[in-house]
Amino acid sequence: MLQLDIHPTGRHFLQIPGPSPVPDRILRAMSLPTIDHRGPEFAGLGLKVLSGIQQIFKTKHPVVIYPASGTGAWEAALLNTLSPGDHVLMYETGHFASLWNKMATKLGIATEFLAWEGRDEHLPNAGSWRRGVQAELIEARLRKDTEKKIKAVCVVHNETSTGVTSDIAAVRQAIDAAGHPALLMVDSISGLASADFRHDEWGVDVTVSGSQKGLMLPPGISFNALSPRALEASKSAKLPRAFFDWAEIVEMNKTGYWPYTPSTNLLYGLSEALDMVLGEGLENVFARHQRWAAGVRAGVNAWGLPIQCADPAVYSPVLTGVITPEGVDADALRKLIHERFDLSLGTGLGKLKGRMFRMGHLGDSNDLTLVAMVAGVEMGLKLAGVKLAGSGVQATMDHFAGHPAPLPRKNAA
Amino acid sequence: MLQLDIHPTGRHFLQIPGPSPVPDRILRAMSLPTIDHRGPEFAGLGLKVLSGIQQIFKTKHPVVIYPASGTGAWEAALLNTLSPGDHVLMYETGHFASLWNKMATKLGIATEFLAWEGRDEHLPNAGSWRRGVQAELIEARLRKDTEKKIKAVCVVHNETSTGVTSDIAAVRQAIDAAGHPALLMVDSISGLASADFRHDEWGVDVTVSGSQKGLMLPPGISFNALSPRALEASKSAKLPRAFFDWAEIVEMNKTGYWPYTPSTNLLYGLSEALDMVLGEGLENVFARHQRWAAGVRAGVNAWGLPIQCADPAVYSPVLTGVITPEGVDADALRKLIHERFDLSLGTGLGKLKGRMFRMGHLGDSNDLTLVAMVAGVEMGLKLAGVKLAGSGVQATMDHFAGHPAPLPRKNAA
Amino acid sequence: MLQLDIHPTGRHFLQIPGPSPVPDRILRAMSLPTIDHRGPEFAGLGLKVLSGIQQIFKTKHPVVIYPASGTGAWEAALLNTLSPGDHVLMYETGHFASLWNKMATKLGIATEFLAWEGRDEHLPNAGSWRRGVQAELIEARLRKDTEKKIKAVCVVHNETSTGVTSDIAAVRQAIDAAGHPALLMVDSISGLASADFRHDEWGVDVTVSGSQKGLMLPPGISFNALSPRALEASKSAKLPRAFFDWAEIVEMNKTGYWPYTPSTNLLYGLSEALDMVLGEGLENVFARHQRWAAGVRAGVNAWGLPIQCADPAVYSPVLTGVITPEGVDADALRKLIHERFDLSLGTGLGKLKGRMFRMGHLGDSNDLTLVAMVAGVEMGLKLAGVKLAGSGVQATMDHFAGHPAPLPRKNAA
Amino acid sequence: MLQLDIHPTGRHFLQIPGPSPVPDRILRAMSLPTIDHRGPEFAGLGLKVLSGIQQIFKTKHPVVIYPASGTGAWEAALLNTLSPGDHVLMYETGHFASLWNKMATKLGIATEFLAWEGRDEHLPNAGSWRRGVQAELIEARLRKDTEKKIKAVCVVHNETSTGVTSDIAAVRQAIDAAGHPALLMVDSISGLASADFRHDEWGVDVTVSGSQKGLMLPPGISFNALSPRALEASKSAKLPRAFFDWAEIVEMNKTGYWPYTPSTNLLYGLSEALDMVLGEGLENVFARHQRWAAGVRAGVNAWGLPIQCADPAVYSPVLTGVITPEGVDADALRKLIHERFDLSLGTGLGKLKGRMFRMGHLGDSNDLTLVAMVAGVEMGLKLAGVKLAGSGVQATMDHFAGHPAPLPRKNAA
Repeated sequence: MLQLDIHPTGRHFLQIPGPSPVPDRILRAMSLPTIDHRGPEFAGLGLKVLSGIQQIFKTKHPVVIYPASGTGAWEAALLNTLSPGDHVLMYETGHFASLWNKMATKLGIATEFLAWEGRDEHLPNAGSWRRGVQAELIEARLRKDTEKKIKAVCVVHNETSTGVTSDIAAVRQAIDAAGHPALLMVDSISGLASADFRHDEWGVDVTVSGSQKGLMLPPGISFNALSPRALEASKSAKLPRAFFDWAEIVEMNKTGYWPYTPSTNLLYGLSEALDMVLGEGLENVFARHQRWAAGVRAGVNAWGLPIQCADPAVYSPVLTGVITPEGVDADALRKLIHERFDLSLGTGLGKLKGRMFRMGHLGDSNDLTLVAMVAGVEMGLKLAGVKLAGSGVQATMDHFAGHPAPLPRKNAA
Repeated sequence: MLQLDIHPTGRHFLQIPGPSPVPDRILRAMSLPTIDHRGPEFAGLGLKVLSGIQQIFKTKHPVVIYPASGTGAWEAALLNTLSPGDHVLMYETGHFASLWNKMATKLGIATEFLAWEGRDEHLPNAGSWRRGVQAELIEARLRKDTEKKIKAVCVVHNETSTGVTSDIAAVRQAIDAAGHPALLMVDSISGLASADFRHDEWGVDVTVSGSQKGLMLPPGISFNALSPRALEASKSAKLPRAFFDWAEIVEMNKTGYWPYTPSTNLLYGLSEALDMVLGEGLENVFARHQRWAAGVRAGVNAWGLPIQCADPAVYSPVLTGVITPEGVDADALRKLIHERFDLSLGTGLGKLKGRMFRMGHLGDSNDLTLVAMVAGVEMGLKLAGVKLAGSGVQATMDHFAGHPAPLPRKNAA
Repeated sequence: MLQLDIHPTGRHFLQIPGPSPVPDRILRAMSLPTIDHRGPEFAGLGLKVLSGIQQIFKTKHPVVIYPASGTGAWEAALLNTLSPGDHVLMYETGHFASLWNKMATKLGIATEFLAWEGRDEHLPNAGSWRRGVQAELIEARLRKDTEKKIKAVCVVHNETSTGVTSDIAAVRQAIDAAGHPALLMVDSISGLASADFRHDEWGVDVTVSGSQKGLMLPPGISFNALSPRALEASKSAKLPRAFFDWAEIVEMNKTGYWPYTPSTNLLYGLSEALDMVLGEGLENVFARHQRWAAGVRAGVNAWGLPIQCADPAVYSPVLTGVITPEGVDADALRKLIHERFDLSLGTGLGKLKGRMFRMGHLGDSNDLTLVAMVAGVEMGLKLAGVKLAGSGVQATMDHFAGHPAPLPRKNAA
Repeated sequence: MLQLDIHPTGRHFLQIPGPSPVPDRILRAMSLPTIDHRGPEFAGLGLKVLSGIQQIFKTKHPVVIYPASGTGAWEAALLNTLSPGDHVLMYETGHFASLWNKMATKLGIATEFLAWEGRDEHLPNAGSWRRGVQAELIEARLRKDTEKKIKAVCVVHNETSTGVTSDIAAVRQAIDAAGHPALLMVDSISGLASADFRHDEWGVDVTVSGSQKGLMLPPGISFNALSPRALEASKSAKLPRAFFDWAEIVEMNKTGYWPYTPSTNLLYGLSEALDMVLGEGLENVFARHQRWAAGVRAGVNAWGLPIQCADPAVYSPVLTGVITPEGVDADALRKLIHERFDLSLGTGLGKLKGRMFRMGHLGDSNDLTLVAMVAGVEMGLKLAGVKLAGSGVQATMDHFAGHPAPLPRKNAA
């Protein structure tokens, strides 16, 4: 029998920025017996989750649900809209933007990788990894593309490697201002269902997302929300595709079925997640994450450590990156915290390796679990010999105590 | 479908001194399909749990497992050993000792309820509810009983209403010093599997316990650990009994079965709990609770609030009672903490109502969940306008960070 | 980790007449985290199950839910209504009636055990164990009790050891016809929620039941449904009682709580069971069991083996007892069937040992699981060398195919 | 809350040839909390399942586990080994072979689709859909390919649409006999862990499989077992790929991790499935399915209906296809059986639509569940007015009773 905890008692604190802590309700829903994916019961499930997920993306257009993890949905967005050699403009917000750029290159797409060119005070080599997408850079680049060779602009909504949530509406405005026909493709893998996102209103053509972040599911299914222009583009896109092809899926989804075997038990979990998120109300969910994030940042500020996101306007409601003092190996710190306090934090990725760690504040959390996270980090920092300006735990507690959650409570039973 | 949380997200903090937080392993084990209680598989289960529970009580003699909650096991201890009108000496450590005394009276037993007669500084009416059993009072009383009319001495090991863990070995020594034949009956409902307990070594005749505390199970099954003298006494005891009668159960248990239908799915949970507790090692379990209790008390001391247990020698490793300042209604405080922070605390019982609350540090907990509990209480105290001498959370964190858990870690997988 | 199956694959067929197969919905509900039995969420749960269980018993009066198995509820019925030495009239329908009689004797009650005096053709020593309660015998006996010394009449509704469902309304009529004030106490442990039962309409004073039969829960909680006369009688009843005492429980239940720790996780299961049973509708549930029973009996009749219940008017809808031919050890047959086909059957109890076995048709079953049960028994009978008149499986199939379930189906969702 | 059953009670009979009935052990394992896929516990899980799955495929070479369903693994096999325009020889065994062929074409591969050219007696248009791969046709075709333009031979091991299990060793011998360098790629999605399969011994270069058949998991993860030649071929293969690319996965798997987020909770299930299948022993598992298949075929033969597989040498141990008499719509029959008996059967796919149905005998089944399936189908056939030569149920029972399972039983607990 599988035993996964290395600590003898108590629940592990999974405070990485995804997979997020999965609510018991969802874990239990996923343990329902698998049913016939061609039977009548399945259509009820399929239609329910397809309709619910549209509400999550705030779209009236089709959302494709893949029986594949988020990386597959990244690939799907590219394969369905582009042809070999097509030019695409991507923006370097961090490690995941870089990985998506690398994937596009690997698939034979000609990418151009825009970045902010300034120099950062705390992390000299951080480049644009502490800021959001600068829409004006995109606009300027598109204006130069007089031949309209650029087929798509790809940006990351909530950059999981840094804790920066870019302004997607501004990117759409920049494209329109440049009068450019490029598609807008957005990775909101870690933003969806935690940070405000509006697929239709913001004019996104393809939104890529996954199950294991704001939707609080285990990893394993992922999404492409489409626009009519994206669907149109897919008709002439020439990159080879079959498993990820939208056309057959969108067609069969009309009756609640999939052309091949879907990930049935994760769809059970999705059904439960939709009940939970839509039952609470998306705006309430967004406000809840904003409040949590503010409480956690209050703690980091009290410590006197720099937050990875250098621009308060684009602080992520989902996670907070913290830069460790020079000479303090962030990964050694994470290891110490994991061993002593059964708390998992996110590592610094790519060029940030060893210089920062990430605290997730998403999924099945509440005030006390987040206070506990801040406490675990604070104990670890002290044990690692880091001098702190003040008590982060106290600041986080003060924030939560001073800002009551505005949410209506659920009734018992 | 049953929905029990009134808060929209995150796990509830169940920090009452039992039922304790139940580990997922046990909840999952309890969800195995029910089997035939007369079939061959059942005997394997029955023999396993009967043998394992003996190790928990540290006894070589029979332990009776009832398909009934702890109150039933209290009654069982009395019914199997006593006859109508028998004299019994009980000791008033708190609310649960008082309830057991009341039950005995109701069953037609003549009880005498000993208590420490001093006057308490913080709670003038607390009487003996802030101290452990004074064995010398028992010895003195028994010496006076020259006719040996007293058939049994009944004491509570870990008084759940106050957070005091009495010295049971001293009670046995007192009885022996008085040369008295009375049986020693002990309630260790909330002590077993958290606080050191030794049925055989300490000469206990009947130990009463339940599932929902140190064993980390839901409530519903309970125990009588027996001595040969208790078994002998049961042969002549005259109080009417059938369901609780030891004889038939002890006889049938030899083959792993019960005379009537046992609580099968709670026995699944018990099997898992035994694997967990015995796998960790009882001495490690005791040390773990002592460390937790010290950390929580460090927090209470930093606040400057009195601990209910006035004698540090008998602090409970299982729970800590805290006396609120005059004028602060402890139950209003508990309500505020529950509503704001999804944290349940124990109420002040009986004569302590409104003047104290209880924090459990048992069950499926760890350093961070206990820090979170202290944080939740601290936020609540401040919101209730209580002046605190200092930060309890910081003190608890310092204790845990400064006292690494001495336990060997489990290996993954 | 607990592994209970001795067969490598597939679900065990638990076809004993209880514990019945537990639906996954209930097992999952029971795995919810335990909550504070004194907290506000608990009251919602408590009031829900207390109200729902009244509908199951068809009563407007209190139903006491014990955190104890059914044997405890038997004892509770006697302790709350009777005094030492009271005279009680019981009726011998089979093994469980005999055990209840034995328990009453053990508790100091003077019982008289009525039985049908005829001689059975198939089982010469079966006595009254193949027939229902003969209400006229009760009436005759009560008429003789001119001093009204008999305080209660105790009968079993659905005798689990034989598969006979007695006419309880007729017993009430008999008592009334005799103009006798005796209380009517009924064991419907295996009848409730499967066979028609009406506590108020039939004038029952105490109905005893349990969780692990028609309610499809694991064993561990049990019930006493009361009448105003029973409550009145409890005020003067003198048998010592505390754990089982109705008064304090009935009083506290008004707010949804219990005086001592209830069996929280089994109450979760009860909540789910009530949703299922009341959602389907009690009359539909009764009809479903009648249809199942008719199908199984068709199989037994086709084999040419005698059904334990000799009177078709009182065939049980819950289980069917089958008498094996002389020389065929029913327990050896059961063992063979268990080993070869992973199917558990009920044994012959008491005086029926070795001469009959029992097939349950209750709990989480359907047409195909019952056909499989009949098939497993038929294969076993043949392997044991029993000559069969014809194919029982075919007859059961013909019955089910020929009698479509009249139930409205649930909609998918 | 999700409710999936349209019938009020009992477990659904999921007798399609996959997804197969999932054992409770696996469903429970999948409900463990999700962990950090970059943490130390994960490596233990990763290394365990990667090593175990090699034993299932009987290979010493890498097996890639995708967080994607089986269709994705089909695509992965093609993308990693082939370049645009490459020639591939595929063999038409049925619907799934046709779909794989269609996928290859869609990806820009030039396929040639071999088929047996005979004419079938029962289904004139069945073509090669009632027979296994004719290895001599492959050999003949390869001998003609003197320029060695054919890069790969693709065949289906267990054709799920028909119930035919082809001889893979013979295909390898045919390729070798022709002295041809083509890779051998095999779909054993529904064969693995039920039917004998030997990746290394049979010289397979890529075996494609999935989770939801013999491994008894829900759908959602899938596999590519590789050979050194396949890995070599992947270095020069030019079809664009990123998500499905072997290289990075195989490299990172050495430490138990994946380059992107794996499907953690399905890996929990896989870990449990490996414990079950390897614990029982692969040869025992194969024998068990052969015995089950023989029992079910005995039933079909007794009915006098033709089995879809026309060649007894290649009967599938996993499923049995049954041809309905002319004029009997197999899908109307399936619908009737589903509505009346809560039993799901596989539909006739592609050119077989309406003329056949498929009975699965895999996953968490046993003798009695399979007898129940045959009974459900038999009742349905009769209700649909189909004349049967004899009782299939009786024949299946006779087979199971007459052929005791040769397996050693597991010990309790």
